[in-house]
Amino acid sequence: MSGSVYGNIFKVSTWGESHGKAIGVTVDGCPAGLELCEDDIQKYLNRRKPGQSKYTTPRNEADKVEILSGIFEGKTTGTAISMVVYNQTQRSSDYSEIASYYRPGHADYTFDMKYGFRDYRGGGRSSGRETIGRVAAGAIAAKLLEELGVSVYAYTKSIGDIEIDYTRFDKDERDNNAVAMPDSNAAVKACEYLDKMLKELNSTGGIIECTVDGLKAGVGEPVFEKLDANLAKSIMSIGAVKGFEIGAGFEVAKSNGYDNNDSFVMENGNVSKKTNNAGGILGGISDGSQIVLRAAIKPTPSIFKEQETVNKVGEDIKVQIKGRHDPIIVPRAVVVVEAMTAITVLDMLLMSMTSTVSGIKKFFE
Amino acid sequence: MSGSVYGNIFKVSTWGESHGKAIGVTVDGCPAGLELCEDDIQKYLNRRKPGQSKYTTPRNEADKVEILSGIFEGKTTGTAISMVVYNQTQRSSDYSEIASYYRPGHADYTFDMKYGFRDYRGGGRSSGRETIGRVAAGAIAAKLLEELGVSVYAYTKSIGDIEIDYTRFDKDERDNNAVAMPDSNAAVKACEYLDKMLKELNSTGGIIECTVDGLKAGVGEPVFEKLDANLAKSIMSIGAVKGFEIGAGFEVAKSNGYDNNDSFVMENGNVSKKTNNAGGILGGISDGSQIVLRAAIKPTPSIFKEQETVNKVGEDIKVQIKGRHDPIIVPRAVVVVEAMTAITVLDMLLMSMTSTVSGIKKFFE
Amino acid sequence: MSGSVYGNIFKVSTWGESHGKAIGVTVDGCPAGLELCEDDIQKYLNRRKPGQSKYTTPRNEADKVEILSGIFEGKTTGTAISMVVYNQTQRSSDYSEIASYYRPGHADYTFDMKYGFRDYRGGGRSSGRETIGRVAAGAIAAKLLEELGVSVYAYTKSIGDIEIDYTRFDKDERDNNAVAMPDSNAAVKACEYLDKMLKELNSTGGIIECTVDGLKAGVGEPVFEKLDANLAKSIMSIGAVKGFEIGAGFEVAKSNGYDNNDSFVMENGNVSKKTNNAGGILGGISDGSQIVLRAAIKPTPSIFKEQETVNKVGEDIKVQIKGRHDPIIVPRAVVVVEAMTAITVLDMLLMSMTSTVSGIKKFFE
Amino acid sequence: MSGSVYGNIFKVSTWGESHGKAIGVTVDGCPAGLELCEDDIQKYLNRRKPGQSKYTTPRNEADKVEILSGIFEGKTTGTAISMVVYNQTQRSSDYSEIASYYRPGHADYTFDMKYGFRDYRGGGRSSGRETIGRVAAGAIAAKLLEELGVSVYAYTKSIGDIEIDYTRFDKDERDNNAVAMPDSNAAVKACEYLDKMLKELNSTGGIIECTVDGLKAGVGEPVFEKLDANLAKSIMSIGAVKGFEIGAGFEVAKSNGYDNNDSFVMENGNVSKKTNNAGGILGGISDGSQIVLRAAIKPTPSIFKEQETVNKVGEDIKVQIKGRHDPIIVPRAVVVVEAMTAITVLDMLLMSMTSTVSGIKKFFE
Repeated sequence: MSGSVYGNIFKVSTWGESHGKAIGVTVDGCPAGLELCEDDIQKYLNRRKPGQSKYTTPRNEADKVEILSGIFEGKTTGTAISMVVYNQTQRSSDYSEIASYYRPGHADYTFDMKYGFRDYRGGGRSSGRETIGRVAAGAIAAKLLEELGVSVYAYTKSIGDIEIDYTRFDKDERDNNAVAMPDSNAAVKACEYLDKMLKELNSTGGIIECTVDGLKAGVGEPVFEKLDANLAKSIMSIGAVKGFEIGAGFEVAKSNGYDNNDSFVMENGNVSKKTNNAGGILGGISDGSQIVLRAAIKPTPSIFKEQETVNKVGEDIKVQIKGRHDPIIVPRAVVVVEAMTAITVLDMLLMSMTSTVSGIKKFFE
Repeated sequence: MSGSVYGNIFKVSTWGESHGKAIGVTVDGCPAGLELCEDDIQKYLNRRKPGQSKYTTPRNEADKVEILSGIFEGKTTGTAISMVVYNQTQRSSDYSEIASYYRPGHADYTFDMKYGFRDYRGGGRSSGRETIGRVAAGAIAAKLLEELGVSVYAYTKSIGDIEIDYTRFDKDERDNNAVAMPDSNAAVKACEYLDKMLKELNSTGGIIECTVDGLKAGVGEPVFEKLDANLAKSIMSIGAVKGFEIGAGFEVAKSNGYDNNDSFVMENGNVSKKTNNAGGILGGISDGSQIVLRAAIKPTPSIFKEQETVNKVGEDIKVQIKGRHDPIIVPRAVVVVEAMTAITVLDMLLMSMTSTVSGIKKFFE
Repeated sequence: MSGSVYGNIFKVSTWGESHGKAIGVTVDGCPAGLELCEDDIQKYLNRRKPGQSKYTTPRNEADKVEILSGIFEGKTTGTAISMVVYNQTQRSSDYSEIASYYRPGHADYTFDMKYGFRDYRGGGRSSGRETIGRVAAGAIAAKLLEELGVSVYAYTKSIGDIEIDYTRFDKDERDNNAVAMPDSNAAVKACEYLDKMLKELNSTGGIIECTVDGLKAGVGEPVFEKLDANLAKSIMSIGAVKGFEIGAGFEVAKSNGYDNNDSFVMENGNVSKKTNNAGGILGGISDGSQIVLRAAIKPTPSIFKEQETVNKVGEDIKVQIKGRHDPIIVPRAVVVVEAMTAITVLDMLLMSMTSTVSGIKKFFE
Repeated sequence: MSGSVYGNIFKVSTWGESHGKAIGVTVDGCPAGLELCEDDIQKYLNRRKPGQSKYTTPRNEADKVEILSGIFEGKTTGTAISMVVYNQTQRSSDYSEIASYYRPGHADYTFDMKYGFRDYRGGGRSSGRETIGRVAAGAIAAKLLEELGVSVYAYTKSIGDIEIDYTRFDKDERDNNAVAMPDSNAAVKACEYLDKMLKELNSTGGIIECTVDGLKAGVGEPVFEKLDANLAKSIMSIGAVKGFEIGAGFEVAKSNGYDNNDSFVMENGNVSKKTNNAGGILGGISDGSQIVLRAAIKPTPSIFKEQETVNKVGEDIKVQIKGRHDPIIVPRAVVVVEAMTAITVLDMLLMSMTSTVSGIKKFFE
């Protein structure tokens, strides 16, 4: 099977390993006529680039994207768009030790069980660098969504016990601090907590929230291809995500029907909702209100603190993983969540164009 | 797009509306040679059948399954298996009122927005009866998994604030009480809580947990087709599910790397794990330990209590939804979660057969 | 894998065996709002029904279709449409002999090799009755295409050496004779030839031609999803088809560029073509002229004449296949070719809606 | 939709334009453990490289492939294999004239109708250079098939009226002449014919035949995913192919059942066939004998001879297409047919592994 291809109409194929020659992605099915240049992609990639704060790996990577196909005279041609980022670090010497044992919390053991061997250099294909392809494709999806009046915005909701205060919510602030929080107060506290984790040679998890504004009602398919089901898959396919929720999410388990139901109400002549526990999706189909989803991100599994594990010859051992580890995955994963959300929403938006005979007739008139 | 087809190798196509002539499913890609009869399916369908307790709709439906193809001399032939359940209730008179307004928490509004009109009889395609097809297909998947040494078991973990006590966990008990809890004490308390909800003309949510035992390491694909990503999609595609988690789930957000990492350890000569925060999946691939997932189920949106909404001519109105409502969705959804988990695990298990050249060579020798 | 599901947006899942309980199909992804009733389907099914002439099997089957889902108040709802045809003949006694050996030209041997056993009653899933599902789905596709100004028309081009004369081409005539030829003269000769074949206990092959009128330029995707590539797959997936061609087809091999190229020419202000060797498709994309394709149909493999073969215990034997055999497959396959063409053209037409940003923007305005 | 992705398990995504920066392909789903290096790919690419004889374009392209991912220590890792060929010719000046009109027989007009504009440099995505990605992917498929005992071999069967003589068939000879014919006599005649075409500023078509040896019975799925149906799609998706046939192909139309049926016969204790009119496929499933398919290739549409066409402002004009044109497509397309056949056969071979419960059980034991 092909684990590296995603989407129906807007189809994304990623490739590349942490320490291979390059990382890349091909986007097939992007409509023709979208103005697109490398800068459009680069600004998204820069948000996940290493070395941006003391909490992110100092690995020296420019992550410079190059578009190899699918653009002519500044516009998408409708055919496959290939993008590549050449790796600057390909030394595998650092990783000879890792090759001999299974790092806890990593995919070392499962890759070996599945494939019989693995590219042990920095996790190979299971590295976080795999997300470069997702982000590059997501940048295109987000740009096209903007043209259609839809905007996607993700941010850090919490790190450990520190959570943003929604009364202080400031969209722009997200890009001013090292933890991608839209609340400067919470960001300060989160940084202090990360400093503590660094000192303890440990790491922490957190929650990313993502919103979609401007999406009309009617996107998403009933039954298996529900909008929320596809969002769940796309978000859970990001490494380190262990939970997904939409709207009120797990809170609904303790709620009751009266409180949890969002009352419909007329607002300026339009059907609206008093609340949004549904997170903008009813029966798998967008209801016209804001889509809200959340992803639970586990702590970085690579830590300097000594851990127990086994080696490949079947001995219990203790290890201190050398190299460069971030004390948290969350801030750099924010743009990845945004990218996967954009890709999924766009793909389903395009699919929704064939829902009615009248819509199709009008299109072909 | 086709919202009603699921899976890659083991492919499931469901169809049918709440008050149409019938509900059904076709399973394509089921391997040849599996002993299968209608009883194998019926015992799963019986677990979601209405009218089994005072907490489930008294709608009179036998939900009797008939197999129309794909079986010869008691065994699957390898070709498409078609199953049908004829509806006994097709009266639409009950629903004329519902046709005029949008029920809060239901897909009435979104179906209208998407398709221009809707089958308003009992929710049409968005009815819970749609899950009959899933359960019938899941019964086949579960039977084949059993042959391969893999067992799937779902149960109610919590209803409102009442949660099972794992020290009292009793698999068989699940089928002895009205709420599908594997803990008789918790079940008693949950029933009391449901009685209260019934009296208040209200409903409640809860959490379903599902475990998979016996799955070897190596199932699931890296990148987009991770085992957990596909489980997330399949579970979130069940109506009323608003959250999904695997292993420690949302708890990881507040945890740290040292505590959250599962140490590998040798056990009787095999690689094992001291803990299972990963829920049996690392890097999207099964690690050989138990898979544990959870789904948050929202309260039944249809309640007798008066609610606010809007009607189709754009007026704010108050409604009391007549008919037959369960005060909770959870107990009947347990077998649906089990079914979708079985379908997904089987599909990915089959896909994992092509992971290595050596495995393929051995197969064709 | 799932061999019984076809299409991307307009997705068709067929099921059923020759002598099972029923044959059926589910169409998912049909847009909402198409007026549809059982008669719309039945008139297509009647064209492939047995017993219509002395050249078709006298098997007693009404092939009466029943729609079980997806229609509400006379219109498609946008959700899965399930259709079923119950078999009247389920006796398997006729086939006990066939079970013991491999019929030449049939799939008996390959089914046994693939699945380890087979439903030997009338070929089971490999029977021509499998096409009932295709035709039922094709009827819906054709009806929707008609609404969009596109018409699909297939007919017998040749039987053995007898070919229609295009100067006598009469669309209506096709439905007046037993061989589906749009030329009454050729039809008479073809019937004489079939009488001869019947007498000789033998059978004959032929060629079916299919045209698509009214399809705008721009349908089909470059590279792998070319319109002609998908037509080739859909037509070659019909049992007994051994060749496919588009436009000038195999004639191009002996032609030259100057003669084979269709000159573009202005006609009433529109771009047109002087000739149509391309068969309406250039680079995999429709060019606005008529689409013309042909399928080569092999002679019925079941013949009364004695043949050599082997039995299941590995002995060379001679057999005379009993039962009911048509001396030709072609006339009843005409509507199947039409159906598969309609399904494919519609599916790709729907997919073409997302080709340009400007088209998408206009749609969502 | 995504026109540039092909396959189910062995999934191929191609990209790149004639005069863009590069051409490439990603192969996802290649099993782990296959020894693979750039030379394995290069020797296939060399067979389609320009400039190999006076009948192929002298465009200066080394077509040097680089593998960017998916290989570790000389073996495939099981993850996506990305390959790139940088274009040496990117000048678009040659093509400014072409931009203004529609070349007969090319996809210029259909691309414009579909996408609103096109990359006119050498045909952009519709160029024959697009097949570089197919051939690179096919080289991997062919190598893996060889490991499994299956070999794919394509060659020129005819050019214009000149056809090979099967009594002189010599596999090695194919690579010794400029027209890829396995018969030196025919090759000489074909070259003379091509010289004539060159002199006349014209071009010719021909037929490519492809055989698959060593494929066991049981590969291919009944109904829509027949092995021959998928071969038809994959071959017809190659630009310039206008017809496809399997085994006796279009000859069956004039044949009769008795002659066309291949009698089964015991041979050294195995079931064999006396003849092979079926071309190795019965009911869509391989029967263990040689697979034989043919593709009709149209004459090169770009010819120096003056032709009529229309320009983009709607005027009838006459054109002589400048640049570099081959008088025939066939010889360079031979390896493309071989590649697409290998990809398709491998994909379906892998899919056939899940046909029976007993096979699956044995695999997982």
